[in-house]
Amino acid sequence: MNKEINPWSNQLVTDYDYLFEQFGLQRMNPTLVAKLGKHRLYRRGIVFAHRDLDKFVAAAEAGKKTGVITGIKPSSEFHLGSRMTAEQIIHLQQQFGTKVFYAIADIEAYADNGLGLEDSHNYAVDNVADLLALGLDPEKTFFYKQSQNMHVANLANIFARKTTLNMLEALYGHQNLSLYLAVLTQAGDIMAPQLEAFDGPKHMVVPVGIDQDPHIRFTRDLADKFKDEFGFITPAATFHKFFRALNGETKMSKRDPLGVMTLNDTPELLKKKLANTLTGGRSTAEEQRRLGAEPEKCVVFELMQYHFYEDDKDLKEMETDCRSGKLLCGECKGIRLKHIQEIFKKHQEKKKKMLPKAEKILEQPIGFKKKTN
Amino acid sequence: MNKEINPWSNQLVTDYDYLFEQFGLQRMNPTLVAKLGKHRLYRRGIVFAHRDLDKFVAAAEAGKKTGVITGIKPSSEFHLGSRMTAEQIIHLQQQFGTKVFYAIADIEAYADNGLGLEDSHNYAVDNVADLLALGLDPEKTFFYKQSQNMHVANLANIFARKTTLNMLEALYGHQNLSLYLAVLTQAGDIMAPQLEAFDGPKHMVVPVGIDQDPHIRFTRDLADKFKDEFGFITPAATFHKFFRALNGETKMSKRDPLGVMTLNDTPELLKKKLANTLTGGRSTAEEQRRLGAEPEKCVVFELMQYHFYEDDKDLKEMETDCRSGKLLCGECKGIRLKHIQEIFKKHQEKKKKMLPKAEKILEQPIGFKKKTN
Repeated sequence: MNKEINPWSNQLVTDYDYLFEQFGLQRMNPTLVAKLGKHRLYRRGIVFAHRDLDKFVAAAEAGKKTGVITGIKPSSEFHLGSRMTAEQIIHLQQQFGTKVFYAIADIEAYADNGLGLEDSHNYAVDNVADLLALGLDPEKTFFYKQSQNMHVANLANIFARKTTLNMLEALYGHQNLSLYLAVLTQAGDIMAPQLEAFDGPKHMVVPVGIDQDPHIRFTRDLADKFKDEFGFITPAATFHKFFRALNGETKMSKRDPLGVMTLNDTPELLKKKLANTLTGGRSTAEEQRRLGAEPEKCVVFELMQYHFYEDDKDLKEMETDCRSGKLLCGECKGIRLKHIQEIFKKHQEKKKKMLPKAEKILEQPIGFKKKTN
Repeated sequence: MNKEINPWSNQLVTDYDYLFEQFGLQRMNPTLVAKLGKHRLYRRGIVFAHRDLDKFVAAAEAGKKTGVITGIKPSSEFHLGSRMTAEQIIHLQQQFGTKVFYAIADIEAYADNGLGLEDSHNYAVDNVADLLALGLDPEKTFFYKQSQNMHVANLANIFARKTTLNMLEALYGHQNLSLYLAVLTQAGDIMAPQLEAFDGPKHMVVPVGIDQDPHIRFTRDLADKFKDEFGFITPAATFHKFFRALNGETKMSKRDPLGVMTLNDTPELLKKKLANTLTGGRSTAEEQRRLGAEPEKCVVFELMQYHFYEDDKDLKEMETDCRSGKLLCGECKGIRLKHIQEIFKKHQEKKKKMLPKAEKILEQPIGFKKKTN
């Protein structure tokens, strides 16, 4: 078990170099970053590694068909991680005209969280409204629910023929059957866009957190095994760093609702969450004025760097004021809070307008009701 | 591993008593047989065991909703085993107005046999034409392809949550992931007819060979586990004896094409197959005239008893002539061959007329093409 990158753990990884050596990840380089339009995610090294992204970009530049696949389990509101991936796929769509495939894992929400398909439908509508408000072009996006995409289920079944329990155990450790099935389904999600039903083989990229690399390796391996049969092109992937939970101690996770900001948070809730966010401050104000604080330890700094400041100058100013001891943490949080609240306010206004459209995009679930008492 | 009833082995079981003791099967009884209209399958003990069939019959008699589920992997022509199950479901449909659910496992045909969905579609049309020719009422039947029924795939995923690898290993021994998935899918097939999409909970019966009992126990167990959630009624099952291959040595199996009769066989092919069929004859004609032959060893006798003689008098006459030594095996085969050829001829004429209807019933596969070179 490679405990360093287990998708189901909430442990933080800090030794990224180890991953490059151990698993053959490729580093982002300036040429690639330049081609990606210097988006903050690449420019700031938040997306810090990839597999075959250079091939994907070359194909896109040559006018070949491209696609990006991501998705969500519709069991909660969008948090900052979902927002970041959304920004990344929207950027790819705008930069290269890449078709977006967006999987809504409603069966997983049912199986994992006991959410009925009607309930997860409501979350899905909320999530899709977020995506539209963030700028996703629905004309160039295929949204689908896991419960309604037979192609994915069929591929999962077919992939199982060339998958052994030993392979899965080597990648993930000894897990339960349901997780293994989820892995096969995810491979189906990633590869289905290359079926004839979706216009055939194409260069795909999968943006994920570094903890998802086992899924990527597993799927790339399957793509190669079934290349002759389906004409698959091995999918590329990008990897972003972990986001820390607001307390700074664990990986950001939906399982800890107070540890993450969600896009529906009210100004008051944001204030409360930011108040409880870990900083890089010193034990006393006196000490901090003397030594300065440590932004590399500060989750508020990470929030602004990863999610909220587009302009590098704003970030630089924040860092300078922090290190110099000029700005104490309380005061700093007040400034950032205003900025974040403003972003959320604008987003929520836009999103509200998008809800009817989101409702229209997603089919209502039918015929899979629980027993009604 | 209960090697006595492994669905994936071609071993013959002969000690049926053992199964009743070991696995709690219920015996058919005269009351139940009488209620089932004394169909030859029950009357002759071909269907010899059940689970909860009495409850199913009581529900049907009380006018409650009932269903029967069976299916086929569309990778070959109908053989006598498929024909027998077809007769059984048609009888249930006619006797009780039971709704038939008919699963066509095209993805399994693809994964197991490498049959493209177009190829298995052609087999499926052929199989459905057989069913219609045998008397299945398409108005009271829901035919579906595995590749197109999301409800089954969704249930398989949900069932996986309460299924451990240990449970599967206890039932089936250590098998590969793909077989375990097939087991979950079969459970999905059996339980999906009780979802709201198919008019909700109902009394179901699953007619299978005794080697399939592990699937039945597994599914009944899941039905109980998910009873509160979906309102499932535990499905009933009937079990028929094994059919021997024509050589008499192994279980009848599609994997041995010369060991089984298929419903498309020409008169010449039937002749050839029957010539090679094991009999209960003695070493010499002299000995046979003196001692008589042994119908219990004879596969020709089994064919007539299980599949071709409706009238018990015909069967009795065959047995008497055999035991008395009056009829030698060659002559006997000639008589039976004529009878079988006649049945096949009539069936094939009917079936031909049913092909356009079968074609109409089954949707063409779309968008899942292999790469075309």
